[in-house]
Amino acid sequence: MNIKLIGLGKMGLNLALNMKDNGHQVEAFDVNDHIRNLARKEGIIVKDTLDELLIGEDKVVFLMVPAGKITEDVINSVKPYLSKGDIVIDAGNSNFNDSKRRYESLKQHGIEFVDCGTSGGTYGARNGACLMVGGEPNVIHKLDDFFRSIAIEDGYIHVGGPSSGHYVKMVHNGIEYGMMQAIGEGYDLMSQSGFDIDYEALSKVWNNGSIIESALIGYIQNAFSKDPKLDEISGKVDDSGEGMWMIEEGLKKRVSMPTITASLFARYKSKDENKFAEKVVAAMRKEFGGHATYKK
Amino acid sequence: MNIKLIGLGKMGLNLALNMKDNGHQVEAFDVNDHIRNLARKEGIIVKDTLDELLIGEDKVVFLMVPAGKITEDVINSVKPYLSKGDIVIDAGNSNFNDSKRRYESLKQHGIEFVDCGTSGGTYGARNGACLMVGGEPNVIHKLDDFFRSIAIEDGYIHVGGPSSGHYVKMVHNGIEYGMMQAIGEGYDLMSQSGFDIDYEALSKVWNNGSIIESALIGYIQNAFSKDPKLDEISGKVDDSGEGMWMIEEGLKKRVSMPTITASLFARYKSKDENKFAEKVVAAMRKEFGGHATYKK
Repeated sequence: MNIKLIGLGKMGLNLALNMKDNGHQVEAFDVNDHIRNLARKEGIIVKDTLDELLIGEDKVVFLMVPAGKITEDVINSVKPYLSKGDIVIDAGNSNFNDSKRRYESLKQHGIEFVDCGTSGGTYGARNGACLMVGGEPNVIHKLDDFFRSIAIEDGYIHVGGPSSGHYVKMVHNGIEYGMMQAIGEGYDLMSQSGFDIDYEALSKVWNNGSIIESALIGYIQNAFSKDPKLDEISGKVDDSGEGMWMIEEGLKKRVSMPTITASLFARYKSKDENKFAEKVVAAMRKEFGGHATYKK
Repeated sequence: MNIKLIGLGKMGLNLALNMKDNGHQVEAFDVNDHIRNLARKEGIIVKDTLDELLIGEDKVVFLMVPAGKITEDVINSVKPYLSKGDIVIDAGNSNFNDSKRRYESLKQHGIEFVDCGTSGGTYGARNGACLMVGGEPNVIHKLDDFFRSIAIEDGYIHVGGPSSGHYVKMVHNGIEYGMMQAIGEGYDLMSQSGFDIDYEALSKVWNNGSIIESALIGYIQNAFSKDPKLDEISGKVDDSGEGMWMIEEGLKKRVSMPTITASLFARYKSKDENKFAEKVVAAMRKEFGGHATYKK
């Protein structure tokens, strides 16, 4: 299949190489000329402008750019080059509400939109990704072989209609937040247990035959192998939005999600240096009970 | 190694067969004569009384019986037969505080106690378990080859001193609770999404290359393959104590575990038909705001 790939960051470049390996004709673009040159060195055909990239008929434009404003801007820049029957695939971590809106907006011009939730990190992008795809059946039908070819075996699903791919990717990430926080709390308790536990060795055993065997325990085993007590990193944890979107969606649909909510709030608290809520609590304890507060 | 195995339930029988396959001399006992006969049919040497079982020198007694009162009773029944240097291995899901106490109590008589957290279910028990073992180094040294032989490859660890095996098994189970609840919440939201998602197919894809790839997603995939919307089962979830012990330990050590606590409380709520807390909330809303309540 002929693919016009936009976004040659770590994920995009690896996907481009993956597509090439699987016999697809890939032409690519990135706004950053340094990144364009890196991709050229890897053997990717790279164009310097959208003018050069977006020529020809029956275009399939594959986006792997950061979610939010950048994806929005890229789609707006690409739109004038597209005509009826062309397809835009957004393989980034977009909010499913944005994907629904983009599908509807492009549809008015006869342009097809496909949302593709992509998991498996850079390794998966290069060697076989895990793909959750949403879109109209007749459009997905044309892309089935392409998606299957760049996915790991049994790692591709057409979930349902437009935006369903990004919806289940959001859910995937929310589950990931909850699983990660539960794992974190477990190691935290062990660190206070009084036992001097070899976390790397224990993680390895947990990943051989236990019920919590998982990719995540594998990742933390790797981390402990490099830094046995994680002395080298701070406990601040970023989030990239999907957890928040999932809680927002839970509120809208009135679905109770205490574990995933707690895991997202734990991340917010991990970055909260001011701790104003706790200041308020400490101040009240002092007022009503004369309890000590700590000076900053 | 000569093993005196007590408890021939699903786990005990499978472990006995596993030990036998690995060249160990196993003699076994169970209080239930039906279960004793089943084990005999499987080729296990079964004794009808503890008198017959607990003869000889250098005894290694391997317990696979339910935690709590039964384990306590069995240890008390076994103790009169034991002498200095004999070893008791508790491979059940005992509370680590009990294991510590039992270690200390048996030690006064020169009897060694080893706690063994066992994961991997009946399949693991038969084909290679995941074992987390606590005990004194010189005692574990004698048992190392035995434990390794009945464990899956890389699925055995001597964690640390007495009770550390049951401690990390408790943490393992608490993490399991949190992971399971996060997964449950994710599917719950998808069930309200408006998309008609094939949960079995999606679970399969998530277990091929995604970040939440895990044994647990494999189990839920199996469940969905038999009952696509889980229409056949109720949403009541039991707990077997380890989650509660972990929260108790967290309170004692003042370790914050919001996700795991939420997952345990979700299980309690799942079984709470009376919902008294919610009745109290509904009653207050009516009193202060005249809001409707629902008749039982």
